[in-house]
Amino acid sequence: VNPASGREAVVVGAGLIGTSIGLALTSAGWTVHLRDRLLSHARVAETLGAGTSEPAVSREVELVVVAVPPRVLGDAIGHALSSYPQATVTDVGSVKAGVLDALWDAQPGLERYVGSHPMAGSQHSGPLAARADLFADRTWVIPPHRRSAQASVQTVRDLVAACGAREIVMDVEEHDAAVATVSHLPQLMSTLTAGLLTGVPASHLALAGPGLRDVTRIAASDPQLWEQILSANQAAVLERLRAVQTELDAVIGALAGDSGSAGEALRASLERGVEGTRKIPGKHGRAPATYGQVVVEIPDTPGALGKLFADVGAAGVNVEDIAIEHDQVRQVGYLALSVTPDQVEALDRTMRDGGWDVQP
Amino acid sequence: VNPASGREAVVVGAGLIGTSIGLALTSAGWTVHLRDRLLSHARVAETLGAGTSEPAVSREVELVVVAVPPRVLGDAIGHALSSYPQATVTDVGSVKAGVLDALWDAQPGLERYVGSHPMAGSQHSGPLAARADLFADRTWVIPPHRRSAQASVQTVRDLVAACGAREIVMDVEEHDAAVATVSHLPQLMSTLTAGLLTGVPASHLALAGPGLRDVTRIAASDPQLWEQILSANQAAVLERLRAVQTELDAVIGALAGDSGSAGEALRASLERGVEGTRKIPGKHGRAPATYGQVVVEIPDTPGALGKLFADVGAAGVNVEDIAIEHDQVRQVGYLALSVTPDQVEALDRTMRDGGWDVQP
Repeated sequence: VNPASGREAVVVGAGLIGTSIGLALTSAGWTVHLRDRLLSHARVAETLGAGTSEPAVSREVELVVVAVPPRVLGDAIGHALSSYPQATVTDVGSVKAGVLDALWDAQPGLERYVGSHPMAGSQHSGPLAARADLFADRTWVIPPHRRSAQASVQTVRDLVAACGAREIVMDVEEHDAAVATVSHLPQLMSTLTAGLLTGVPASHLALAGPGLRDVTRIAASDPQLWEQILSANQAAVLERLRAVQTELDAVIGALAGDSGSAGEALRASLERGVEGTRKIPGKHGRAPATYGQVVVEIPDTPGALGKLFADVGAAGVNVEDIAIEHDQVRQVGYLALSVTPDQVEALDRTMRDGGWDVQP
Repeated sequence: VNPASGREAVVVGAGLIGTSIGLALTSAGWTVHLRDRLLSHARVAETLGAGTSEPAVSREVELVVVAVPPRVLGDAIGHALSSYPQATVTDVGSVKAGVLDALWDAQPGLERYVGSHPMAGSQHSGPLAARADLFADRTWVIPPHRRSAQASVQTVRDLVAACGAREIVMDVEEHDAAVATVSHLPQLMSTLTAGLLTGVPASHLALAGPGLRDVTRIAASDPQLWEQILSANQAAVLERLRAVQTELDAVIGALAGDSGSAGEALRASLERGVEGTRKIPGKHGRAPATYGQVVVEIPDTPGALGKLFADVGAAGVNVEDIAIEHDQVRQVGYLALSVTPDQVEALDRTMRDGGWDVQP
């Protein structure tokens, strides 16, 4: 017997996110009822296997997922709390504080509301773009509030688990500040970059490479949705944009040669960018690994390096990275071999035994 | 017999680009001599199979590829023209006008110089990151100048073909304006976005998704190289940055509610971004395809849409895209099926024959 069988959920809003949640919950054994202002969306979601468009018996519903645009989110959550008196109600909105504030004073049943925010999406929208694995291995933030019931928090955790996502519990205000930095600012930077392409001749755009495509991919996202998200997180987004404005002014000043040390200022900006990329955790949210290094002098004879690579290969250790380093004074080069800390000793010994000049 | 056998090339600068070119030319049958200020780079490139570090007999060299940092490019090109009196000399620099201007008046042999610019690279650098297929299917710009000899242009074309790239011949000034838009501006926007992450708590960065990673990927590129590229294309880059500055000021004003129509101004920016992404040619440089559409009303009964999808599948046409459209007045939905223009009639007939309500 499927552990979730008999559990009933309602998904309000059969767009990309709602339909994907419907697919994941259905796969996990839940009975899912789909609702959408646009009947055609509910019909398509149903056809894709995300649930049924038949209405639920309201007292039997354990979970309502409200997946509607930010502008109507507060009303839809309030309506769900009233319509499904036994249900935990969650939403998937990108910004949390404003909605909670609007409900705080007068909304009955608020202990059954626990917000959530799956950190997944797409530049595409609508139920046809939905996928059951949209949330697999993605971060999904749960920001409970002071009055949230523990049982409701657990039900939302079950939802996150059914979707295969990684749960992070986080304060509402922290969440909104974090998404301003990791989601809303990059969206606007992508938008600004892509926006400048509108007046550009096709012959220039023929030179576009993967760099431009990467930077502008998310600029293709739904403008109506993003206008609402950005407006809902106005203060935090403005703070980030003003920081960009200051830095952009500095880069323009540096490049225009306003100061005597133009190159240095520009380089400092570029270096800060490199440093920023290193702070982003790896694909699956792990912290960047720390490795030990064995540094071997590169011999000044043709062919010798081939033997060195062969010896490294034969050492039986898993080399994670190889980098070339230089001694500018002695004009010699080194290979820095990165391995997990427990393998450093074995590699060091093998290389010395092979007659290589290993740095202490 | 390999058509290129007997042809000799020198690659000056055994970094990512030079070593990748050495690998591609060697695969195509050329004899490649590798030179680098850092002997260890030349040795690593040699070990990887990009050529030999033995010096060439200068009069036998047909092609010199100068793959050194922008700052020393002019000198290196001049030196190559003098050292290899029979050779066509090209470079792979990202900016073209300044170098040519510096050589124009006094450099002997300038008819043997034809610049080039492969639109490929990586956030990684050095010979260890090199790949023989780095340029496969990528755009490679050839900007000949007024005095370029036809034979030299042809030799550079042979280089581009040996690397498997797609050649675009383009005026020097046009090239520099184009790369400011499609390469240098996105680089700085990525840098600015990543730079703001340096002061951010790790708990916030744990929420990072693929959007942030895409936007900031190229910010990890070599700051020293990019400082030189941006400085070399100062005027064109400044023009683009000032356009961003204006647009950023407008977005900040809109979000801060400075005008009465804040939402509209923000939406206009977001929509311009979407429009910009649509102007970028497809992965292989093809223009976006134009399709014909067959629009079918979505029936208001459960299960019917499944039969509609099945009928579309059975129609034997290749559906390129399916989108949902709505009639807000009649509150009905439509499926817009995109097919190549020659298949519209067949799909239209099949759907009508199946009893579906097809829009005229």
